Amino acid sequence: MSLRAVTVALVAASLPLAAAPARADEGMWTFDGFPAAKMRKDYGWAPDQKWLDNVRASAVRLTGGCSASFVSADGLILTNHHCVVDCAQNLSTQASDLVANGFTAQTRAEERKCPGQQAEVVTMITDVTKDVKAAIGTAMGEALVKARDARIAEIEKAGCKDTATMRCQVVTLFGGGQYKLYTYRKYSDVRLVWAPEFQAAFFGGDPDNFNYPRYALDASFLRAYENGKPVKLKQYLKWNPRAPREGEATFVVGNPGSTQRLFTTDQLAFQREVQLPITNRVLSELRGRLLSAMEQSPEKKREGGDTLFGIENSLKVYVGRQSALNDPKFFNALADAEGDLKAKSAGNAAIGDPWGQVAGAVKAYRDVYLSYRFTQPSGDLYGYAEDLVKAAIEREKPNAEREPGYTDSALPLLEKQVLDEKPTYPWLERIWLEWSLSKAREYLGADDADTRLLLGKESPEGLAARLVEGSRLADPAVRKALWEGGMAAIRASNDPLIQYALKLEPRQRELKKVVDERYQGPLTAAGAKLADARFAAYGDALYPDATFTLRISYGKVAGWLERGAMVAPVTTMGGAFDRATGAEPFVLAKAYTANEAKIDKTTPYDFVTTNDIIGGNSGSPVVDKDGSVIGAAFDGNIHSLGGNYGYQPEVNRTVVVSTAAVQEALETIYPAPALVKELAAK
Amino acid sequence: MSLRAVTVALVAASLPLAAAPARADEGMWTFDGFPAAKMRKDYGWAPDQKWLDNVRASAVRLTGGCSASFVSADGLILTNHHCVVDCAQNLSTQASDLVANGFTAQTRAEERKCPGQQAEVVTMITDVTKDVKAAIGTAMGEALVKARDARIAEIEKAGCKDTATMRCQVVTLFGGGQYKLYTYRKYSDVRLVWAPEFQAAFFGGDPDNFNYPRYALDASFLRAYENGKPVKLKQYLKWNPRAPREGEATFVVGNPGSTQRLFTTDQLAFQREVQLPITNRVLSELRGRLLSAMEQSPEKKREGGDTLFGIENSLKVYVGRQSALNDPKFFNALADAEGDLKAKSAGNAAIGDPWGQVAGAVKAYRDVYLSYRFTQPSGDLYGYAEDLVKAAIEREKPNAEREPGYTDSALPLLEKQVLDEKPTYPWLERIWLEWSLSKAREYLGADDADTRLLLGKESPEGLAARLVEGSRLADPAVRKALWEGGMAAIRASNDPLIQYALKLEPRQRELKKVVDERYQGPLTAAGAKLADARFAAYGDALYPDATFTLRISYGKVAGWLERGAMVAPVTTMGGAFDRATGAEPFVLAKAYTANEAKIDKTTPYDFVTTNDIIGGNSGSPVVDKDGSVIGAAFDGNIHSLGGNYGYQPEVNRTVVVSTAAVQEALETIYPAPALVKELAAK
Repeated sequence: MSLRAVTVALVAASLPLAAAPARADEGMWTFDGFPAAKMRKDYGWAPDQKWLDNVRASAVRLTGGCSASFVSADGLILTNHHCVVDCAQNLSTQASDLVANGFTAQTRAEERKCPGQQAEVVTMITDVTKDVKAAIGTAMGEALVKARDARIAEIEKAGCKDTATMRCQVVTLFGGGQYKLYTYRKYSDVRLVWAPEFQAAFFGGDPDNFNYPRYALDASFLRAYENGKPVKLKQYLKWNPRAPREGEATFVVGNPGSTQRLFTTDQLAFQREVQLPITNRVLSELRGRLLSAMEQSPEKKREGGDTLFGIENSLKVYVGRQSALNDPKFFNALADAEGDLKAKSAGNAAIGDPWGQVAGAVKAYRDVYLSYRFTQPSGDLYGYAEDLVKAAIEREKPNAEREPGYTDSALPLLEKQVLDEKPTYPWLERIWLEWSLSKAREYLGADDADTRLLLGKESPEGLAARLVEGSRLADPAVRKALWEGGMAAIRASNDPLIQYALKLEPRQRELKKVVDERYQGPLTAAGAKLADARFAAYGDALYPDATFTLRISYGKVAGWLERGAMVAPVTTMGGAFDRATGAEPFVLAKAYTANEAKIDKTTPYDFVTTNDIIGGNSGSPVVDKDGSVIGAAFDGNIHSLGGNYGYQPEVNRTVVVSTAAVQEALETIYPAPALVKELAAK
Repeated sequence: MSLRAVTVALVAASLPLAAAPARADEGMWTFDGFPAAKMRKDYGWAPDQKWLDNVRASAVRLTGGCSASFVSADGLILTNHHCVVDCAQNLSTQASDLVANGFTAQTRAEERKCPGQQAEVVTMITDVTKDVKAAIGTAMGEALVKARDARIAEIEKAGCKDTATMRCQVVTLFGGGQYKLYTYRKYSDVRLVWAPEFQAAFFGGDPDNFNYPRYALDASFLRAYENGKPVKLKQYLKWNPRAPREGEATFVVGNPGSTQRLFTTDQLAFQREVQLPITNRVLSELRGRLLSAMEQSPEKKREGGDTLFGIENSLKVYVGRQSALNDPKFFNALADAEGDLKAKSAGNAAIGDPWGQVAGAVKAYRDVYLSYRFTQPSGDLYGYAEDLVKAAIEREKPNAEREPGYTDSALPLLEKQVLDEKPTYPWLERIWLEWSLSKAREYLGADDADTRLLLGKESPEGLAARLVEGSRLADPAVRKALWEGGMAAIRASNDPLIQYALKLEPRQRELKKVVDERYQGPLTAAGAKLADARFAAYGDALYPDATFTLRISYGKVAGWLERGAMVAPVTTMGGAFDRATGAEPFVLAKAYTANEAKIDKTTPYDFVTTNDIIGGNSGSPVVDKDGSVIGAAFDGNIHSLGGNYGYQPEVNRTVVVSTAAVQEALETIYPAPALVKELAAK
C-alpha cells in the first residue's frame, strides 16, 4: 500500500553499505546495466536479453507515482488498488462510491476514464552524459543548473517529435554522474476496469501498512486506450495465477521513486537533524486536522479518504527514515561506507574533495531551507493557481530558458493534469491551505518577511477561507480559459488564488535562484565527482539512486527472522478471516463475508521477497524466471523504510499480492468473467 | 505563557556546561543553598537571611503546576493569567465566558473558588539524606525503589500531623544525591479575583509564545481562603508598580518544574533519538485533531481553548528541546562537560562508573519504553477512573507499601483533585481517549499483546466512544461514592471506565515494576554516585536539577544579541497597538480598543531578564533588591528551551509582565479599585 512514490512535502540486522558495491539481492538496476554475471553467480541463472526486452516492453509507468504492467494484448494493465484509489475517488459521488464498493466493468463500454492519468512505456535509453556535461563545461552554482537544464530541454524536445504519443525525459543518474535520455510511448487515456472494495484492498489499514503478515487484495486493473479504443499490444506479460514457491527467483520491474543511498553524511545529518523532524511534526498535525474533520460526516469521510491515506503513508515512510537515521548503528555503518570510499579516493587529484563541497552546500542550504520550504502553500486549488501562473510566465520564454517543469517536453502532461476534470472539496482545500500557512508562520516566525508576504495582515484561517471561497479554479472551464489565455488572462484574472499565486511567484523564483546557486549547483558538481570516485573504487557494476525511472531488481521468495522467529513468506486468504475483528480497519469487506463459503481459503494471498524496492514501485509486476507475472508489489515491510539509505538483505522485504489471489477474487469475490477470459488468453 | 510545568505525556551563542559549576547568572538555587558569596562577587551585593526569609515566606506554589506570590495581608496572590485560565474555563459557560471576557470581583463576595486548586508555602526544609540512604542500604533495582519510597512515605507522614493545613513532601535532589523534607503551609480554598481578557493575556497567541518582544498582560490575582474567609498574613511581598531598570538585579522566586542538566549523554541520546521524536509527532497529531474539532462550533472553540493552549505550549517546549539536542554544537558541549567530570573522577574507586550504570539502565529502558508509555490512556475521565481504581487498591495497603502518589501524605490533594466539581466535555474526552489508544496501536503494533489488552476487538474510535458515552464519572457525586466506597464500590461498579481502568491496572503495575527494577533503581543508585563525583570535582556550591520545589535565581534586566541586533529589554503598552493586525491572534482585546485614549502607552509592559528559569516558574514573582515585586515571570525566550539541558547566559532570557502594566490595567483597562487600594496598602 505504501509504495506509491512519496509526493507529500518533500531502519537493523545487517547494516547498510550504501557507497560500496551491491551485496546479496541489493540493487535497483537500470535495464542498460543489468548485472547478469552477478546474478548468475548467486542464482545459477540470469535472464537473457530477449527476456529483458520483453519485460521492459511490458512495464508501465503511471503518472500518479506508480508502476504497473501490461497483461493482455488489449492494453489491460495490472497495478495496485492504492494506485487507482484517487481515480476511483474522483469518479465517485456520495451516492455511487467506487472506493467503498469497488468497481467492475463487465463490458469495455463500462470502463471509466481516470482524470490526470497517463501510462508510459520505455522504448529507448540513450546516453547523453557527454552532451550534457559539455554544455555544463566549467559552470558553477546557478549557472551550472541553468546550462544543464537548458541542454536537457533541447535534448528532450529534439528527441520526441510526436508529442501526442511520445514523451522524452532526460534523467540525472548518480547525482550528476550520468545523464540518460528515456524515450516513452505514452497513453493518455487510461480507464478504470476493476477495483475491489477498499476494505479488501486496504484490510488492516494504516496499522498494517508496512507490516507483514498481510491480507490485502491491493490489486486493480486499468486499460490503455487510444482514439477511443483499447490499444493493441504485441508485448505483454503472461498472467500466471499460481502459488509463489519459497526460494524461487523473482524480479520486480518498476519505477522506484527516490533513494538517497549516495548521500554524504552531511546530507544525512541535515535530514536527521532538521528536515525529517519538521516533516514528521507538520504531517502529524495535518493528519490530526484531517482525522477530526472527516469524523464530522460520512461525506467528508469519503471525500478525504484518499488524502488521508496519502498523508498517513508518507508519514510512515518519513518516520521510518527518521528512526533509521536515529539508529546510531545504522548511521555509523553509512558513515563507515563513506570513510571507505574516501580512503580509496585519497590522493586522486581528479576527484578532489566532493564531500567538502557537499558539506558546504548543505551548510548554505540550512540557512535558506525554512524560507524555501514554507513559501510554498499546499492544496489542489492553490496548485492549479501556481501551475497556471508559472506556465503562463514560462511559456513566454524560449524552451531552453524555462524552469524544468515547464519545458515543451513537460507541458503536455502538465496541461492534462491541470485541465482534466476532477472534484475538489472546499473543506479539504481549506484544511490544506490553512495548515500550510499556519506552519509557515510557525517555522518562519510571525515577524519574518516571508510570513508577512504570505499572510499580510490576515490570519492563516481567514486567508485560507477567503481564497478558497472566492476562487473559481475548481471549474475546469475556468482553468482552461486561463491556460489558453496565457499571461494576459492571468493578469486580468480577479480570481483570488491566481492573484495570490502571482504575488508569491517572484519570491519563490528568487529563492529557487538562491538554492540553485548555493545548493543544487554545488551538489551537481560534487555529484559528478562522487560518481567518478565510486566507479574508480568499485568498478562500473553499480546501480544509481532511484529516479522514478524503470529499474529491475532480482531476489527470491523468502521470509525473515523477526525477534527470534521466522516470518513465513506466504499468507492465505483464510488468514484474513482469522485476523478480522469486526472493527475498523479489521473489518472484512462485504463481498468476503457474503462469499465466504465459496472462497478457497487456502489460496495464496500476499507474499514477501528479497527484492530491493522503494516508493514508486507500487504496482510493479513480480515476474518469475519464465517471464510470467505472479504478483504485484504493493508494500515493503517495516525494515524496508531504512532502504531509502541502504539495503539490509536479512530483513528488507517486498510485499506482494499474488496473482493467485487476484484470480480467486475475479472468479469468486468480485466476479469479472470477461477479465478472467482475457487474462487466460494465450 | 509557557512556564507552567509541562504535564502532557512525559529542547545558540555560548554553549551549556551542565555538569560544571554555575557560570554567570546560571542556577536555580535552593533556599538552603543560596550562593551569596558568588552573587556578591558578581553584583557587589547579595541578599541577607532576613531578605531571603521574607521572600520565601511570600512565595506560593500552585498545584496546577505554577508559581505565585502573596502580595497583600489579606491573602491576595499574584500569578500569571495562564495559571488561572483553567480555573476561568471551569467556571465558564457559553453564556458567561470568563476566559474570553475576563473577570473582576469588585467585592470579595464575588471571588470564585477554583476547582482542584491549592496554594502552598514552604515553611521548613529538613535534610533527610542520611535517613533515606540508610533505608536504601545496599538494595538495588526495584528493591531500592521500594525501600526509598517506603521510608519517604514514613517521613512525610511523621512530618505533617495536621494534614488539613500542612503538606509534607520529600524531594529527591541531584537524582538521588540528596533527600530533603519540604514542609508546606497549605491553603486548599483558592478563589479567582481578577483576570484580564484572554486576548490581552495571550496577545500574539502560540506564534508569540516563547518569543520576544512581547505585549502580553499575562497576570491575574487569586486569593487564599480558610474557613470561608481570606487568610491573614504577616509576610507578603510589597507591590511596586514601577518601571524595570536595565541592568538592575532581579530575583525570580518560584518552582521550576524539571530540568535535565545532570543527565548523562546516554540519557540525552535516548531523548533525542526516541522520546522527543515520538512525543512531538503524537502531540502534533493531537493538536491537529483538536484544532479541527474546535472549528466546528464556537462552543467547542471555547471548551477546548485551555487544552489547546496546554498542548501547543508543551509542543513548543519539546520541539525546542529536540532542536537543542539536534544541534551538534550544543550536544557536544554537554558531552564535553561530561568528559570533564569523568576525567576529574578517574581513579576515584568510591565513585566507580555511574555513567556505565546509567547507560545500562537506559538500554534496558529502551526495551520496555513503548509498552510503558502507551499502556497509559489519556483524558480527564480516564484519569478519574485510574485514580479511583488505584487509590482504592493502594489504600488497602499499609502507608509504607503504597505507590508514591497514594501515600497518606499525597492522598488529601489527590482526593480534592478527583472530587472537586469541574466540567468535562464528552467530545474532548473522546478525542483524548481515541488519540491515545490510536497512538498506542501505532507504536506498539496491531498484534502486540498490550494493544490487544487496550483494544480487545474494538477500534480506538469505537472503544473511546463506548467508554465516554457510558461513563458517569463526569458527575462528582459518582466519583465521591466510588472514592468513599473503596475497593468494594470499585468492584461493584458497572461504569465502563472504571471497569476499563481495573482491567489495565495489573499490566500497568507490572510494567512499573519492570521499569523500577531495570531503570529507576539503577538510575537512583548511579545518581547518588554522580552527585558524589560532582561534589568531589566542583565543591558543594552546586544547584540540583529542578524538582517543582522552591528555588531562587538571581540575574538582571538585560536584552540580548539576536542575529547581530540587540533586543531591547523592555516593551511598552503602546507596542501592542502597533503590533495588532486585526486578525487572530493579533487582535487587540476589546477593553484595550475601548480604552485606547485613556491608556498611557508609555507604560512599561513586558521585560526580559537573565534569570535562569524553566516551566513551573510561571507566575513567579520577579523581586528587586528591596524585596518588592516588580513583575511576574510568564515565559522564556526561544533560547530558554535548551535551558532544560544547559543555561546559555548570553541568550537565555526570562520574560516578565511588569507590575507597572498590571497597575495600569487595574486602574484603566479592567478597573478594580478595591484591588488597587489593597495593593497600595502599607
